[in-house]
Amino acid sequence: MSRFRSSRFDRLAAYVPGEQPRERKYVKLNTNESPYPPSGAVLEAVRTAAGSLNLYCDPTALKLRQAAAKVFGVEPDWVLPVNGSDEILNFAFMAFCDGDTPVAYPETSYGFYPVLADLHGIEKREIPLKGDFSVDCRDYLDLHCTVVIANPNAPTGMTLGLSEIEEILKNNRDSAVVIDEAYVDFGAESAIGLTKKYDNLLVTRTFSKSHSLAGARLGFGVGRPELIADLTAVKDSTNPYNVNAMTQAAGVAAFGDNGYYMDNCAAVARTRDRTAEKLRRLGFEGTDSKSNFLFVRHPRIPGGELYAKLRERGILVRHFSKPSIADYNRITVGSPEQMEALLEAVREIL
Amino acid sequence: MSRFRSSRFDRLAAYVPGEQPRERKYVKLNTNESPYPPSGAVLEAVRTAAGSLNLYCDPTALKLRQAAAKVFGVEPDWVLPVNGSDEILNFAFMAFCDGDTPVAYPETSYGFYPVLADLHGIEKREIPLKGDFSVDCRDYLDLHCTVVIANPNAPTGMTLGLSEIEEILKNNRDSAVVIDEAYVDFGAESAIGLTKKYDNLLVTRTFSKSHSLAGARLGFGVGRPELIADLTAVKDSTNPYNVNAMTQAAGVAAFGDNGYYMDNCAAVARTRDRTAEKLRRLGFEGTDSKSNFLFVRHPRIPGGELYAKLRERGILVRHFSKPSIADYNRITVGSPEQMEALLEAVREIL
Repeated sequence: MSRFRSSRFDRLAAYVPGEQPRERKYVKLNTNESPYPPSGAVLEAVRTAAGSLNLYCDPTALKLRQAAAKVFGVEPDWVLPVNGSDEILNFAFMAFCDGDTPVAYPETSYGFYPVLADLHGIEKREIPLKGDFSVDCRDYLDLHCTVVIANPNAPTGMTLGLSEIEEILKNNRDSAVVIDEAYVDFGAESAIGLTKKYDNLLVTRTFSKSHSLAGARLGFGVGRPELIADLTAVKDSTNPYNVNAMTQAAGVAAFGDNGYYMDNCAAVARTRDRTAEKLRRLGFEGTDSKSNFLFVRHPRIPGGELYAKLRERGILVRHFSKPSIADYNRITVGSPEQMEALLEAVREIL
Repeated sequence: MSRFRSSRFDRLAAYVPGEQPRERKYVKLNTNESPYPPSGAVLEAVRTAAGSLNLYCDPTALKLRQAAAKVFGVEPDWVLPVNGSDEILNFAFMAFCDGDTPVAYPETSYGFYPVLADLHGIEKREIPLKGDFSVDCRDYLDLHCTVVIANPNAPTGMTLGLSEIEEILKNNRDSAVVIDEAYVDFGAESAIGLTKKYDNLLVTRTFSKSHSLAGARLGFGVGRPELIADLTAVKDSTNPYNVNAMTQAAGVAAFGDNGYYMDNCAAVARTRDRTAEKLRRLGFEGTDSKSNFLFVRHPRIPGGELYAKLRERGILVRHFSKPSIADYNRITVGSPEQMEALLEAVREIL
């Protein structure tokens, strides 16, 4: 660090994304990407957009909001497109937390939440999971905090039902509640419908997993227009043209091909369930993941060791050193062929 | 606004980008875009990148940093690519300002600086321009503030020489100094070479104007590795994958075609000087702009009126209501044809 950096950041520990090694070709099952390419309409839309990159993109992303609204079942002013869903989380932490309003989230969840809280000097209430790794909605009532819950949760893949989410919304009427639906299309119920009933609900989405656009960076906030206006004001004060023209065009095209992407999500869910069953037969234990990853451990091999042995064999998975989950690995559900490569390597290791 | 928004933002006035009207086709001379399309290599690079958008982009943007380093004459760890140069400004305000370190900048300059300061609760020292709209470097010595200066300045287009910038750097040894070179390629001297001599210098760049990539969102911070590390830590805590894969690829290709873009900048500078001369003959007065815009007034027509009358005639320019510059309009230098259309409309109006 330089001698000019604000002392606020003396203990800043940035988020560490899943590794992207370049020294050899890996079967990459560590960052929850889709194994399926973007649709032809997306490629075509990007090609067209590239021709006029000398002009600014629409800072209001109107066409993209219209396309999103149609699929999400809301109006365009209920949607804010962002440069990946990390950005909408950043805006939400900025808009809805401060010295008087801490943030509460499950102690084991997306590792970016504590990073954002620390960045903005927001007090954290980290609520432990139950022994089976589940989130108990009763732990999130009347907190007087901004509440953030990933559904499905990461890295467990476990879900909350809509009635549980509604319980949280009802019992935090004076706090914003963020439901992070990064993985919802692989098997959880979306809370977007509840935005009509609860003015404290912000749902966040990403196209990185379900819509094969991780490299394009596209996420969304969905909620009532007043919430979206707050987030838009932060956006316009941070980076008014936050979503570039190619990604806006790709997003519109991807919404137009929503059926293709939902079919892909269903295929990933089937591959997930088949792989889970095969791992179980090999002695693995794990959570009931409804996401595009599995969260598993083997009684005979420590998590870090399995990670390292898979890596030696050209298979990258994600291991977290946090003690409560260090026995586990998070394994992205890729194509059936990638899963076969994983299983073969696992059999060798056991 | 919602009832959940932090009271910190009660007086938040977001930046208002130049209008992007859709109701009719305008000659758009209001947002300083390049009139020239991106090069063929950029289109090709985008097309290739689009095919693997299901995978994340490189969060370290290594290839882009290598390409940038070559053109900027530094090493790759002296460069941070960002999602448009507004983002590097945001990171710099976050990293190098706080309750103890105000920010100082020319009172008339890029309208985004006060927005960022207000967003982050940073005290502002706004230093008036001289009567001829120039920045006097002697006003910026020993300020004990983070100093931000656009060179050329906006909306005046006027420049500081490197010796003046060096004076500022020498006399603010314990403060970060940001030189915003958004418009440098149209006729100012870059301070990038001074990063080797001064550890307090951060130079910011954008590809929106000079490199025909406004719609792709690509900017850079250039400075010593310690400064870049601070900004990277803020980036990784805010949005680790901030520059999407298509824009990274477009940037690498644009650096490869740097000659094409520098030729375009030279063409814009020639068009600027010719247009300025023609406006002068029509009675206009203005600054000596070294940027891709002109900043002019006519003694017989108030700035707001000229703006409105041009707009009626299908020509969009930028008018600022701030009293000290309300007589003026900022007119982007487009293609020779666009400038002819402007001049024709002006002759009609006069």
